[in-house]
Amino acid sequence: MAARRMVVIGGDAAGMSAASQARRLKGREELDIVAFERGGFASYSACGIPYWVGGDVEGPDDLIARTPEQHRERGIHLRMFTEVTAIDTEGQRVRTRDLVDSGGGESWTEYDDLVIATGARPVRPPLPGIDAPGVHGVQTLEDGQALLDTLKKNEDAGSGQRAVVVGAGYIGVEMAEALVRRGYHVTVLDQAEQPMSTLDPDMGALVHEAMCGLGIETVTGTAVTGVRTGDDGRARAVLTDDAEYPADVVVLGLGVRPETTLARDAGLPLGDSGGLLTDLAMRVRGHENIWAGGDCVEVLDLVSGRTRHIALGTHANKHGQVIGANVGGGYATFPGVVGTAVSKVCDLEIARTGLLEKQASAVGLRFVTVTTESTSRAGYFPGARAMRVKMLAERETGRLLGTQIVGREGAGKRVDIAAVALTARMTVGQMTALDLGYAPPFSPVWDPVLVAARKAAAAVREAGSA
Amino acid sequence: MAARRMVVIGGDAAGMSAASQARRLKGREELDIVAFERGGFASYSACGIPYWVGGDVEGPDDLIARTPEQHRERGIHLRMFTEVTAIDTEGQRVRTRDLVDSGGGESWTEYDDLVIATGARPVRPPLPGIDAPGVHGVQTLEDGQALLDTLKKNEDAGSGQRAVVVGAGYIGVEMAEALVRRGYHVTVLDQAEQPMSTLDPDMGALVHEAMCGLGIETVTGTAVTGVRTGDDGRARAVLTDDAEYPADVVVLGLGVRPETTLARDAGLPLGDSGGLLTDLAMRVRGHENIWAGGDCVEVLDLVSGRTRHIALGTHANKHGQVIGANVGGGYATFPGVVGTAVSKVCDLEIARTGLLEKQASAVGLRFVTVTTESTSRAGYFPGARAMRVKMLAERETGRLLGTQIVGREGAGKRVDIAAVALTARMTVGQMTALDLGYAPPFSPVWDPVLVAARKAAAAVREAGSA
Repeated sequence: MAARRMVVIGGDAAGMSAASQARRLKGREELDIVAFERGGFASYSACGIPYWVGGDVEGPDDLIARTPEQHRERGIHLRMFTEVTAIDTEGQRVRTRDLVDSGGGESWTEYDDLVIATGARPVRPPLPGIDAPGVHGVQTLEDGQALLDTLKKNEDAGSGQRAVVVGAGYIGVEMAEALVRRGYHVTVLDQAEQPMSTLDPDMGALVHEAMCGLGIETVTGTAVTGVRTGDDGRARAVLTDDAEYPADVVVLGLGVRPETTLARDAGLPLGDSGGLLTDLAMRVRGHENIWAGGDCVEVLDLVSGRTRHIALGTHANKHGQVIGANVGGGYATFPGVVGTAVSKVCDLEIARTGLLEKQASAVGLRFVTVTTESTSRAGYFPGARAMRVKMLAERETGRLLGTQIVGREGAGKRVDIAAVALTARMTVGQMTALDLGYAPPFSPVWDPVLVAARKAAAAVREAGSA
Repeated sequence: MAARRMVVIGGDAAGMSAASQARRLKGREELDIVAFERGGFASYSACGIPYWVGGDVEGPDDLIARTPEQHRERGIHLRMFTEVTAIDTEGQRVRTRDLVDSGGGESWTEYDDLVIATGARPVRPPLPGIDAPGVHGVQTLEDGQALLDTLKKNEDAGSGQRAVVVGAGYIGVEMAEALVRRGYHVTVLDQAEQPMSTLDPDMGALVHEAMCGLGIETVTGTAVTGVRTGDDGRARAVLTDDAEYPADVVVLGLGVRPETTLARDAGLPLGDSGGLLTDLAMRVRGHENIWAGGDCVEVLDLVSGRTRHIALGTHANKHGQVIGANVGGGYATFPGVVGTAVSKVCDLEIARTGLLEKQASAVGLRFVTVTTESTSRAGYFPGARAMRVKMLAERETGRLLGTQIVGREGAGKRVDIAAVALTARMTVGQMTALDLGYAPPFSPVWDPVLVAARKAAAAVREAGSA
């Protein structure tokens, strides 16, 4: 019997995790695995790019989990610089183009199982000058290298003083800090009321303060209208409605959208944000032998009950593992997410899980919110630092809906407590009894998350009796 | 209508939390609150004593959450140095003795609600010399002060070189480190195979290594037979079957037992470990208006289904809060614990939750165990440190039964993920999909707890197919 063939589009986290997991379960005589990657890197950590730019990580080699050669040694035919240009679901085949050997033309590869792991592309609004040299996205290792080349060029020219970051989300804020560490004066421009709009504005204000503390100028409530270029065609300034921000380098941190052009052209089902829609086994809905995972899909948000697009390496790896298990003849599912994210600015740790106020309202939930101040360790213990926790709970039921945490050391990963509680659909009342680790160097006798849960439980009781 | 009276025996965490919470709910005209404390301190953190001795905390004032005066200002009649010598459940009254004014004799105080929060007493085996000056427990602030007085005396005499700690549990290990920081050469003696027998021996071995790294001599598998005293009657050495360990100071870290002599004499129900048995509202079983909480009770272990004695400030505070709510006319329950504990030796963080192997076996559970090595941050991120996670899961069902974590920064509080998962009775398979906070400075793309859960889920599958 001929081996079945698994074809993977996209050689990063989701795709190569799927390939690796399937290979673990099925030998080469049973399963032929072919993966296409249009870029020059596979299995790398895009999340590490800000730290590479900032100098924490030497990279790019440090960011590569597994080289193409290592994949090939394990029996995965990984073809780099090869773009998939069409999916023929009827014929169960994909068309590819060799990006290096342009004379190579196009060819077709048949599949028994297809894995779509085409990732996401950075948002790049169609503004004048946005494609000028010196304007950088930070999605791929190639992007990171190009940005570093610009920084080097500036340094050589003695002009590396001013950077403008467009967008104050995770990537924007991380890149702003990286550029400060490279000696730049950094301005961050964002349309929203506060940076880090993955938090409620009252919590985002704490991030704003920390950015100021780093010397980052943060201009909120402003829309970028274009990029002014110099005589050499390179970016020189970022323009807004009412101002001009000189820039020796511009970084775009406007978030990403699912890269699903191929899928759309093939008639595969997409959600409201343009991501592929899958079932719980990560099978594209309605297509028995087509799978999708990573930054190109929408995932079920277990709290809101809706599908959302969340580009995050940890999800991509889980999707890949699930797909690989299923294609390899095993069984696995990805039940969904609760919307956990963690980041840092300088020593300020920023975390959220579940729904923000506006997200909860948007899906028809009625809720109470509380905000508490506590400390990371027993108040008397050296190194105890302030921590602010905000919690949303459903009125009437008291079910936890979301948690946001901002503080110093020990704040960020505390969000995991709430993430597990959300997954288990606990009420804030139930959370008050959680048996969390306590010792003076680790926590006050009431952990900050418990302090917030107690206050939230009281707010739910009050709302019920009102 | 006359005010009801709430009488509290014991002025530390559980008792004063109960009093404070009841006071929040009921004004002075409705509820008269009288609390008796035989010592000279109320509402203090006994868990902080090792850090006071080690010099991290100036104390003892830093360890006092609320002074007697502060309690009195809030309408709690707190009588210090007053011992309760009997409980008369028929007559609804307690007999007290003034320890300062010995001529004051004994008197009776009637109660409508009684709260027993008598705490725990350190284990002090009846061995020759065990009560000699220079042998110290570390249960109360008075104990801490007495130990510091001995250290000062040694210092003045130029003899503060050698310390012996008996018992290598949390307190023993924390005290050993504190004494190292005070310049002592420290020997720790323990009967068990490895220090920290709150962990499985294979994980305890990692603690052993860290103690060695601090220069602590740890002698395991050895039983203390007595304390040799000098001509002045002070402790000079600790004796075992086959050796003698010279000591300028001896610290007992043999754990604690519930202090329930009063309760026993009053015929109240006690469990196997001598702790009071309560219902879920923290009411002493069979006694409508007698409540108990803190280190003198047994709590329900939600994983084993048995009651256990666990002396821990965080539980005591929760019990007090529950009792105060109920006595104050509200409603609250304490559902039980999952057995979470966290500690550190130098920079080694040590945590556990749920059951150890021997505990799981003892209650008839069949299980698989896995141990994994991972890192606290993305492997390429500066400061990433090794972390070992051990996980127990029930055979057949895959339900999580316990987790032990040993590592450096960021290891300890990760146990909270497992603590919440245990509370929610999750399977290790369900845990593999948990949406935990991911970013390179905080976690690898697979959090160490997820790595362990994946391996445990695989072990459960294998056990099922075997």
